[in-house]
Amino acid sequence: MKSASVTISPTGQASVQASVRGNDSLAHKRALIESSLDKYTRFSPGCPESLREAIRHSLLPPGKRLRPMLVMLAAEACGATADAALPAACAVEMIHTYSLIHDDLPAMDNDDMRRGKPACHKKFGEATAILAGDALLSLAFEILAREVTPAEVAMQCVVTLTHAAGPTQLVGGQCDDLSEHLATGSRDLLESIHNRKTGALFLACLRLGGLIGGATEEQHRALQTYGEKLGLAFQITDDLLDFHGDRRGSAHGSANSDAGKLTFPNLIGVEQSKEAVSSLVTAACNALAPLGNAARSLNALACFVSDRA
Amino acid sequence: MKSASVTISPTGQASVQASVRGNDSLAHKRALIESSLDKYTRFSPGCPESLREAIRHSLLPPGKRLRPMLVMLAAEACGATADAALPAACAVEMIHTYSLIHDDLPAMDNDDMRRGKPACHKKFGEATAILAGDALLSLAFEILAREVTPAEVAMQCVVTLTHAAGPTQLVGGQCDDLSEHLATGSRDLLESIHNRKTGALFLACLRLGGLIGGATEEQHRALQTYGEKLGLAFQITDDLLDFHGDRRGSAHGSANSDAGKLTFPNLIGVEQSKEAVSSLVTAACNALAPLGNAARSLNALACFVSDRA
Repeated sequence: MKSASVTISPTGQASVQASVRGNDSLAHKRALIESSLDKYTRFSPGCPESLREAIRHSLLPPGKRLRPMLVMLAAEACGATADAALPAACAVEMIHTYSLIHDDLPAMDNDDMRRGKPACHKKFGEATAILAGDALLSLAFEILAREVTPAEVAMQCVVTLTHAAGPTQLVGGQCDDLSEHLATGSRDLLESIHNRKTGALFLACLRLGGLIGGATEEQHRALQTYGEKLGLAFQITDDLLDFHGDRRGSAHGSANSDAGKLTFPNLIGVEQSKEAVSSLVTAACNALAPLGNAARSLNALACFVSDRA
Repeated sequence: MKSASVTISPTGQASVQASVRGNDSLAHKRALIESSLDKYTRFSPGCPESLREAIRHSLLPPGKRLRPMLVMLAAEACGATADAALPAACAVEMIHTYSLIHDDLPAMDNDDMRRGKPACHKKFGEATAILAGDALLSLAFEILAREVTPAEVAMQCVVTLTHAAGPTQLVGGQCDDLSEHLATGSRDLLESIHNRKTGALFLACLRLGGLIGGATEEQHRALQTYGEKLGLAFQITDDLLDFHGDRRGSAHGSANSDAGKLTFPNLIGVEQSKEAVSSLVTAACNALAPLGNAARSLNALACFVSDRA
């Protein structure tokens, strides 16, 4: 069990004072994930060229691949190979990308840029962007059902990921987030939105990895606590980076684009938000104790999460 | 094996000269489906009220429930109970409803009315309509994975329905349909769009029913041929009804709203379209021979399809 010390500079740049081991292994996994995402989106002839391009435009640009990494590291922490978790990892990245494509639409957050490139609807039009998101949603579940074995585990994975993506979690969180543009809500409401819009998918990643690794109940509980703490830390860091207008190449390019929105810096202040991130990352790492040394990469990833600016 | 004789009047009203048995049973199944759809969309507290209302506004108004009926009748034709097929039937209706909600959006077909009521986005706004469609997509697969047993069959059902809803089928067909507003395409292109946009979901219904009923390969093939013929007959009838501007309470209310679009009446004329429907429905019914008397309700439904105006 390792304690991570995280500080976020006044410009919003996070730095981590913890030895992050296994970067080579992370880079290797990232390459595996990106090559699989490429393979999954070549498609047979029934897929129109514009739709294929729109999907690949949003899914394939290199990224940190944090969520699929969580799936693979959780599976490894429970004794499975990372390869066994690769289909589930790709499915999660597809769900994440679908949610970004739809969230960026003019009717939603109306963002023109995403990951340093034009948002899907800016390049391919709204109709194709809506359809690209829809396609990724179905494709993600198809891959889970088709490639995870045995069927009993695949079934539990589909239940986990569909639920996390559904009306009471990811979609419900986005819906409430659209209604809460003014900083009039409580911390409970803010955490409720974050838990559904971001946290639910983090938890699903860890549960998928645990399911594929054949986790015991104790291991599932450890992964769940880690995921709860890490998911909230991730979202507060996100709020801090937006607050400092330092999200280079991400959706929000302008300084303090969340001004007036219900966010952690607006609600509890910058300093308290930083402290919350630090103690949440520490708690996330501490929760991994039952997994022992097998969870060292998850431990390192918790630091990476805070260093993602 | 029964031959159905179908005529469509100059006003687009279809009539069927075939004895349609089992209407009581169909009404009972429809009631079962609608009560289950209601149950599935009550949701736990994480679902915002506006999202729940938008989903229920689009999903719950009474309808013919043709696609879920196909699932249940196919399952019965292979020896299962209709109840065993009810979760899969509801999942299919959710996929159908999601596609209608998204197709109606201003960026897509821009339709204001659906099933005699304001389209989802007209009543709840575009953002909520997009999210309602997204939610139904995830929910459909969650129900399949959670409620179909055993897991092996559930996973085959998920693969079948995700594939039918995905980029090479339903979403791909809609994407091409948006690009083909002028009647400049060939019959091959038109059938390719119909096969993906409408036919794929029909085929999925029959395969789901077959899977739940433990169909033999021969039974699956019979159901597949029935579905191919019926799906195309359904779409040509749809084109005919649009051509005659007689779709009361459906999306297109004005006469010949498909003028200039690539449709069967525009491509091969009204008379040849009617003949095609008649011979396709006959071929659909003939294909059911290997299922014997157990398929009599599917036989009746083929006539119902042509009588749906």
